[in-house]
Amino acid sequence: MSKYQLIYNEIIYVLNGLLLITLIFIFVYMNHLNPVEIIKKKRDGGVLSKEEILHFVSAYLEGHIEDYQMSALLMAVYFQDINEAETMAFVESFINSGETIDLSFINKPKIDKHSTGGVGDKTSIILAPLIACFDVVVPMMSGRGLGHTGGTLDKLESIPGFRVHLSSKEFKENLEKINVCMIGQTDELVKADKKIYALRDVTATVENIGLITASITSKKIATGADGIVYDIKIGSGANLPEYEHSEQLAQNLLKVTRDFGRKSIAVLTDMHEPLGYAIGNWVEIEECISIMNPDSEKSSLSDGLIEVTLTLAGAMLMLAGKCSDIFEGIKLAEEKLYNGECFNKFIEMVETQGGDSEYILYTDKYKKANIVSEIKAHSSGYISRLDGLKFGKAAVNLGCGRKKVSDKIDYSAGIILKKKSGDKIKLGETVCLVMGEDKSKIESACRIAEQAVEINNELIEPKSKILEIID
Amino acid sequence: MSKYQLIYNEIIYVLNGLLLITLIFIFVYMNHLNPVEIIKKKRDGGVLSKEEILHFVSAYLEGHIEDYQMSALLMAVYFQDINEAETMAFVESFINSGETIDLSFINKPKIDKHSTGGVGDKTSIILAPLIACFDVVVPMMSGRGLGHTGGTLDKLESIPGFRVHLSSKEFKENLEKINVCMIGQTDELVKADKKIYALRDVTATVENIGLITASITSKKIATGADGIVYDIKIGSGANLPEYEHSEQLAQNLLKVTRDFGRKSIAVLTDMHEPLGYAIGNWVEIEECISIMNPDSEKSSLSDGLIEVTLTLAGAMLMLAGKCSDIFEGIKLAEEKLYNGECFNKFIEMVETQGGDSEYILYTDKYKKANIVSEIKAHSSGYISRLDGLKFGKAAVNLGCGRKKVSDKIDYSAGIILKKKSGDKIKLGETVCLVMGEDKSKIESACRIAEQAVEINNELIEPKSKILEIID
Repeated sequence: MSKYQLIYNEIIYVLNGLLLITLIFIFVYMNHLNPVEIIKKKRDGGVLSKEEILHFVSAYLEGHIEDYQMSALLMAVYFQDINEAETMAFVESFINSGETIDLSFINKPKIDKHSTGGVGDKTSIILAPLIACFDVVVPMMSGRGLGHTGGTLDKLESIPGFRVHLSSKEFKENLEKINVCMIGQTDELVKADKKIYALRDVTATVENIGLITASITSKKIATGADGIVYDIKIGSGANLPEYEHSEQLAQNLLKVTRDFGRKSIAVLTDMHEPLGYAIGNWVEIEECISIMNPDSEKSSLSDGLIEVTLTLAGAMLMLAGKCSDIFEGIKLAEEKLYNGECFNKFIEMVETQGGDSEYILYTDKYKKANIVSEIKAHSSGYISRLDGLKFGKAAVNLGCGRKKVSDKIDYSAGIILKKKSGDKIKLGETVCLVMGEDKSKIESACRIAEQAVEINNELIEPKSKILEIID
Repeated sequence: MSKYQLIYNEIIYVLNGLLLITLIFIFVYMNHLNPVEIIKKKRDGGVLSKEEILHFVSAYLEGHIEDYQMSALLMAVYFQDINEAETMAFVESFINSGETIDLSFINKPKIDKHSTGGVGDKTSIILAPLIACFDVVVPMMSGRGLGHTGGTLDKLESIPGFRVHLSSKEFKENLEKINVCMIGQTDELVKADKKIYALRDVTATVENIGLITASITSKKIATGADGIVYDIKIGSGANLPEYEHSEQLAQNLLKVTRDFGRKSIAVLTDMHEPLGYAIGNWVEIEECISIMNPDSEKSSLSDGLIEVTLTLAGAMLMLAGKCSDIFEGIKLAEEKLYNGECFNKFIEMVETQGGDSEYILYTDKYKKANIVSEIKAHSSGYISRLDGLKFGKAAVNLGCGRKKVSDKIDYSAGIILKKKSGDKIKLGETVCLVMGEDKSKIESACRIAEQAVEINNELIEPKSKILEIID
């Protein structure tokens, strides 16, 4: 054999070797990303690799992995949980699945807030314009009502003309112009999360802290905020009523958000009774206006709402670098809340998003509910409990929320509390007003709301709504 | 108001009351059968009612409940298990989902056998004709190869012309005429089990004793047997290798089968090494023929196979009321196995189902495998282990089984053991033959099979293959 022949043979051997290694690699790789093997691994308590999660989610979105395999994985996750690294991988896969909003062209801090949802929770309506007054950008994407808790989008849409469905281009323009914009999630954002969330809803796999964390943080991170304040609600009116779970959720949200290079603070707040005195849509906007408008009469029933809103504002301003601690931030926020600056910014936002500010300035112009019913005290004493969950359910029954996606919302309907926990009350005195268009709906709401009220002989001092601040 | 008016009003009141009660009932009923609520109940460790299971399975079969909801329920069952009553409800729902075969027109005992599957497990081929010799009807529906274990249908189809897909009409006619018929499951039988099994396979929810029990028993009960012997394989070559799980499965199978009014015995048998000496399709038929044909030379390597076959035969004859205990049954079976009666019945069955009995009488006529490779002992000593799982995998690689549904089976391929555990062996002596059509397949099979053989200096006495009989 000639020398060249030998070299040629050597090369062929090496190439064959490389081909074999490549084939083995492809085989191992394919097998390792087999959906059944991935489900089995999680089912048996294994830790999924980042690659496995990214593959599973993207293949699912592309239709290569079926709904039934995703739901089996989700149920396995429900039982075996996902650790921090796995949660991060889910977040990354959700963010990668759609567009992300780049706000780096605006040279200001961008701070967002997320609430896990509660009854009468209207802090966003005040917070977004309030923080925008500090030359801080608030890129807020909110949701619809979920279960017994209301949704910021539904409340905003009760303002005649207000548009919550803007393109991301318009969203960015508004943020650049007036620092604040409140919209619904665009179809292009975190597509995988949207598809998976819908599946979780019909397969009893919603209640997992890891998946909840991934769903919340991916949306917030994709929206372009560089600091996020989480308002974690605890109590019967919240979506996650247990303290223990909420604290774990708070820790997870902070960890993941920070691991993605965003600043974050979590505030755990009380949601045993409705926040403020209004539950509904327009009635909640009205309550916010009465707080923001310097000419409005203030109700002491909004005290808890103001406490929570100012604390969240303090936390947002701290993340924005506008103060050195939350308490200083609260002081700053308080000033602009009451001097009319916040109200003017709110009006500016409403007008920029197509809303008719006449209704904001003259709330009496708004169409009133046809029927108003009253719930009266069945004994004298002190209000010891106004159950958040029951008031939430009563409000949904009134038409303030949806039982199914196709339900139409009655924007004028709602419940107005006349007393809060700790208040003295006499037999026959009004506890709350129940308002709506439909007699049978009002009757069913009253039946539920009546169960929500407890009157006791002893005065139980009302406590602060702020349970814990984790920063 | 007149008297009639009053009576009329009374009737209207009563009718209104009845209507209300009916509406409430319908509401509670509908809510209670909400698929998400049923999944949640099982997920949270609840016990599903019979009604809930029957509804879930039938709605799934009709397409009202989606695959992703069924897979979520199955994964919840994997983690939370199902109790005896729930298993019974699954069995009932599976049986109700398709046709059932009524054999009551044949006035003879009808006894079936089911094996959980093992490597070289060919007992059915001998058992079915053997028991039929006692004027006992054997209505046997078998399966294809599963994983590393072979399938009776594939083995039967290696006989030229043998038809395993008969209508239930033909199945009944054959049973009436010659007492025995061996076929594949018809499309009409236990439809829900078929649909759910396919889903379990791709969602990692196969391995649950309750679901395995429901799947096995529903098929056997729907086939019309009034007594069933379960052969539960234990060891590396089995589908469920752990003793503990197998014993639990045996107890569950007995309980459910008896609760459906059928007699039942479970035999736990050893499956650490292949049963008999042949692994494949035609080679296994050949091994059975060598046992059944009085003119054939017998190999001592079939000893374990004969022990298991006769024990199962004894149990089947006992269920048929042909003897008072299994040992008496073994004696009766042994006689007909060796005197040629069983062999004649086998030929009769092959001919009735379209098979060419020339190949049964003159096995040398069968097309031989092109290539035969040998695995030799790498040292001298005693065979201490012939790993069932590895031999099973080697056989699948040879083409005896399928890696995917579309794979074609090579009926001539197979492995022939020349030694069994406890046998003395010299360095370089042949342990087994590896036969097939394709050089690369043989090479890969040999690599796996070589790993299956262990040789030791000390003699370990071989033990009985019968580990436990539960009756």
